[in-house]
Amino acid sequence: MILINIGDELLIGQVVNTNAAFIGQQMTAAGFELTDVITIGDDGPAIREAVERAMSKTDVVLMTGGLGPTKDDITKKVICDIFQRELVIDEATLKQVTEMFAARGMELTETNRQQAAVPEGCVVLTNTLGTAPGLWLEKDGKVLISLPGVPFEMEKLIKDEVLPRLKAGKFRSSSLLYKVVQCTNITESGLSDMLEEYEKQLPEGFKLAYLPKPGIIRLRLTAEGNDTEQMQTTLDQQFDLLKQQVAEYAFTDEDIELEEVVGRLLVKAGKTMATAESCTGGYISHLITSVPGSSRYFQGSLVSYSNDIKRDLLNVREDNLKRRGAVSEPVVSDMALNAMGLFDVDYTIATSGIAGPDGGTPEKPVGTVWIAVATPVRLATKEFRFGSRMGRKQIIERAARAALNMLRIEIEKDLR
Amino acid sequence: MILINIGDELLIGQVVNTNAAFIGQQMTAAGFELTDVITIGDDGPAIREAVERAMSKTDVVLMTGGLGPTKDDITKKVICDIFQRELVIDEATLKQVTEMFAARGMELTETNRQQAAVPEGCVVLTNTLGTAPGLWLEKDGKVLISLPGVPFEMEKLIKDEVLPRLKAGKFRSSSLLYKVVQCTNITESGLSDMLEEYEKQLPEGFKLAYLPKPGIIRLRLTAEGNDTEQMQTTLDQQFDLLKQQVAEYAFTDEDIELEEVVGRLLVKAGKTMATAESCTGGYISHLITSVPGSSRYFQGSLVSYSNDIKRDLLNVREDNLKRRGAVSEPVVSDMALNAMGLFDVDYTIATSGIAGPDGGTPEKPVGTVWIAVATPVRLATKEFRFGSRMGRKQIIERAARAALNMLRIEIEKDLR
Repeated sequence: MILINIGDELLIGQVVNTNAAFIGQQMTAAGFELTDVITIGDDGPAIREAVERAMSKTDVVLMTGGLGPTKDDITKKVICDIFQRELVIDEATLKQVTEMFAARGMELTETNRQQAAVPEGCVVLTNTLGTAPGLWLEKDGKVLISLPGVPFEMEKLIKDEVLPRLKAGKFRSSSLLYKVVQCTNITESGLSDMLEEYEKQLPEGFKLAYLPKPGIIRLRLTAEGNDTEQMQTTLDQQFDLLKQQVAEYAFTDEDIELEEVVGRLLVKAGKTMATAESCTGGYISHLITSVPGSSRYFQGSLVSYSNDIKRDLLNVREDNLKRRGAVSEPVVSDMALNAMGLFDVDYTIATSGIAGPDGGTPEKPVGTVWIAVATPVRLATKEFRFGSRMGRKQIIERAARAALNMLRIEIEKDLR
Repeated sequence: MILINIGDELLIGQVVNTNAAFIGQQMTAAGFELTDVITIGDDGPAIREAVERAMSKTDVVLMTGGLGPTKDDITKKVICDIFQRELVIDEATLKQVTEMFAARGMELTETNRQQAAVPEGCVVLTNTLGTAPGLWLEKDGKVLISLPGVPFEMEKLIKDEVLPRLKAGKFRSSSLLYKVVQCTNITESGLSDMLEEYEKQLPEGFKLAYLPKPGIIRLRLTAEGNDTEQMQTTLDQQFDLLKQQVAEYAFTDEDIELEEVVGRLLVKAGKTMATAESCTGGYISHLITSVPGSSRYFQGSLVSYSNDIKRDLLNVREDNLKRRGAVSEPVVSDMALNAMGLFDVDYTIATSGIAGPDGGTPEKPVGTVWIAVATPVRLATKEFRFGSRMGRKQIIERAARAALNMLRIEIEKDLR
């Protein structure tokens, strides 16, 4: 399967291509193998060349983008050229688009009407969330699927229309299965040396990948082949072997984010938490509340961006702020400890640092972050130096992950 | 210019390809045109085919990924095959890697040593942030650049090593210039109809693109050609014309995020703000603090995820919580108004909603969000129904952008 994403905004980097990641996840989970993702601009000849080349290489070609009502969207015309079809108005789509506009009290213009034009004889995939329908065309046993580029419209069409049709068809390639174990407190090359013998004994079709993230290395064991049942059995065996090898460094064998690991530990322990954030500005709170069901253990957060708020709402001692500065061990300690009572919780995280680009000093350069984690019986503090070259967003992200990892370690101690 | 991103993790959607967006931005800004982005897996023959095809189509081929210390990284071998070179140890890189490990108190293993192996005769681009150097190889007047896939290492190499070399060389294609104006309160097709005549009169090489985001449509006017000076003059004229046409709906002619628009308005007005967040869980606070210098106007946030915190720390009236529920107009009004005094600020945003996937009822389905914005003299409230099909993260994101947009409107009223 080849995916073609269309849009100048992707090439000039105005938009990050999250559609490719979503489609990759969905197809992998359903047993289809995506081999190439091609991103090109809103350019007729380039689209035509990419589609024709993809259709010569694979059975299923999926396109996103270039289906909207405006003039920069030219995908439908290119498809008509390739398949030698005419554009015709699809009455069901026209009715739906008309109703969508009527519901908003708006009249249909000619531009909107053209949204209902589709290549003659194609299968129309109804888009209930927008005005551009998906298209499904077959030729010589191969299929071309064209979807709108708006993420939530595309996502619903993939789940409701594309996957059921692909599964019913004869398009499934060899299966791909994988499992992930996540490690911490070891480098990528340290793991690689440790696993040299293990990798050598892996059966054919098996592959181990090292995926480093700030503070974490994810090990992904992949199996590819045709006999799914046999593959699953061998994958389970090999994965158990892998887990034994890295037991000292592994903290989860699920492919989930750190905030979800922390959430599960809190549910298991029956405990609650809150955060008191300065330099991370609410990002830790955001990560934690991204997890469905987090209201079971998360009470809230006080983002104390100014020193006044640290003093007035978090009772940080004036003396600590004045003599040691906001980015210091006593200040994050005050923040974490006072947040315990303020939110009436079992665990708190506190952060204070210099995310940059300004505000650094020789003693506390940009990237300096103090983190404190308070538990019912302990207070853990640590200074991080993420380096001034890293950029504001990365420093915030690294600090948040470091803080969640410190909390994870403390909860695990209490669960022992 | 063609970009090739290597990594199974990108194809199976385990990682979102942010590297492509970064490189697209940098190259566009420097006047290089990226025409294709190709994503392929850690597969020798596929990498070789993609590189050879790209080098036949264009002068500059940029690769990321596949340079790490572990066995799934095979890019260097493929480059040696294509250029018919041998791998040799680069002494400067070996020295740097050795020092990097020594600084961490670790010894160099054979795997680490191999990080310093490079194709004979290539230019080594020193990676000061990691152990895998960048590679620059030329052949028949064309250049192949290979960079590590770790985002912050790649970003520094692009800025410090790749761009200066590209600019010094003869690799610049025709220039690409663009300007952006952002509109709200109008649909994409409404704008398209309004701008039909405008688009018809655009000179050759000029293109208008419609880039919808939740609640916002960005219009991007692009000019492509060889005479940069002339292009810039015409672009300025055409852009002024465009701004006149959409004046009623435009809110900024800079290509910045809504949180930055709000930040600039607050600086201009000399005012401060805070947030009181429930369903957005700190995400609005995170967006605002992502902007450098936001400490000038942002005091902080109270994320009141539980009803207890809403009542105890934000003084939300018990009666409102009980009779109307946490997701209601009186509750977000209480939150916004009480946050004014708590943080001693001029503006506040409050949110309360059902982000899902659970917690919806027939009266308040998943996706229902109440937002309040308090100003020194007004209180604006609004109910949004983002739709239960949208997913937790999208609902949080949409609610945050809707809230920032409401705040923007209120500050603009006060600035008039």
